[in-house]
Amino acid sequence: MISKPGSALTLATLANFPMIQDGDNLADIILATLKVDQINLKNGDVLVIAQKVISKAEGRRVGLQTVQVSAEAQALADKTDKDPRIVELILMESNKVLRHRPGLIVVEHKLGFVCANAGIDRSNVKQDEDSGDENVLLLPKDPDRSAREVRLVLEKATEQRIGVLVIDSHGRAWRNGTVGISIGFSGLPGVVDLRGDPDLFGYELKATQIAAVDELAAAASLMMGQADEGLPIVHVRGFPYPLREGAFSEIPRDLDSDLFR
Amino acid sequence: MISKPGSALTLATLANFPMIQDGDNLADIILATLKVDQINLKNGDVLVIAQKVISKAEGRRVGLQTVQVSAEAQALADKTDKDPRIVELILMESNKVLRHRPGLIVVEHKLGFVCANAGIDRSNVKQDEDSGDENVLLLPKDPDRSAREVRLVLEKATEQRIGVLVIDSHGRAWRNGTVGISIGFSGLPGVVDLRGDPDLFGYELKATQIAAVDELAAAASLMMGQADEGLPIVHVRGFPYPLREGAFSEIPRDLDSDLFR
Repeated sequence: MISKPGSALTLATLANFPMIQDGDNLADIILATLKVDQINLKNGDVLVIAQKVISKAEGRRVGLQTVQVSAEAQALADKTDKDPRIVELILMESNKVLRHRPGLIVVEHKLGFVCANAGIDRSNVKQDEDSGDENVLLLPKDPDRSAREVRLVLEKATEQRIGVLVIDSHGRAWRNGTVGISIGFSGLPGVVDLRGDPDLFGYELKATQIAAVDELAAAASLMMGQADEGLPIVHVRGFPYPLREGAFSEIPRDLDSDLFR
Repeated sequence: MISKPGSALTLATLANFPMIQDGDNLADIILATLKVDQINLKNGDVLVIAQKVISKAEGRRVGLQTVQVSAEAQALADKTDKDPRIVELILMESNKVLRHRPGLIVVEHKLGFVCANAGIDRSNVKQDEDSGDENVLLLPKDPDRSAREVRLVLEKATEQRIGVLVIDSHGRAWRNGTVGISIGFSGLPGVVDLRGDPDLFGYELKATQIAAVDELAAAASLMMGQADEGLPIVHVRGFPYPLREGAFSEIPRDLDSDLFR
């Protein structure tokens, strides 16, 4: 299943990736950057993309001055000391609020995962200097689809079988700091199921399902940074599991196995 | 802060690492294996070690036939359909039971993290064929110290400044599958604090703390596999943050910022 002993995983940022604007064709820009960076995709490679550049290309920027605040959002904003317009967007993007405290609203996002503030982000989004209007960025509408679109263009151009993974950074319930995490993907496994495989002494493993796509997301996130690095694309060689079709629906826990919702 | 654009992270398993027994000197065995595998440690490298080989070397194997079951453990075993002897060990290793359901007990481990079944593991532990006795493996007593001990030996032998990270695989509250995660470390940052750094447009980041050590743990775990691969050590080159002293106490959330305990 896993690649042979002594094998290596390599993750490299695309150094010459440009700033992305509303309406840009992300797949074409990635293809062009791979050429400039002299990276030749090979079968089994994975490209990891920060959600932010997908959201930008897909026009998911919202001007806060356009947001109508509902009574529900205003009430939650009062309780959490947050901008009521941002709270309105958080509610719009979520199925359910799970917890809140000042500065933080933990939700079940419409995309199926639990996260803080519906993944709505003020950082690394261009603000309008003249009007003083503030913008925020919503998550991509359908990150699996965004991944698939990029994958198809790259596979057609290179004639190689690759995977594409869209990641964000999430906090965790009981641990400090954020880690990179998958929010959508195409062409690679989400969860790798080892149940039934023998362990080192020949006993059958009973409970091992590896969230391979989240382990890869964390690895790639490490190389992207979060501040002003502008490195939203990571090229991965040596992903140790066979590529297959996959989708984010592999990742969220069923409610009946969820002890914390 | 982060390494320059175009930089790469490489993770390679130590192919010739032997099976570990009670009482083995892990640091010496790692040193010898690095030579066999022709890996020369350099300043800034990190070695990632699966907790299991540390637990084995430190003699953390427990024969279930030696366990005295308390009334409390028996009651919880009845509710969870688990072996009462294992439940006894789970309680012994934990500060508090947070949740339980059949087959699963979520605890706050004495080491400070929240995890399933106190990290007690039946897989990849040698069972006694003659007596039929079953063994389980407890987590290392002090993974920070274990990491520091290995680090000091390697730094002395190589005269290079390195980091050592001890990892386990944990499930997550809302996501399927396990990911590699830190349980102890020495010589590298746990959480990297970017608050105050400028974003791409010069705005100050307000809330970005990156759990770099957990991102690296996930990356290394991807290369270790879980079943019969026997690849518990990963050599990392290109970790993008400066090494510094660090300890696991950076990772657990304070109770007053914890919404799910």
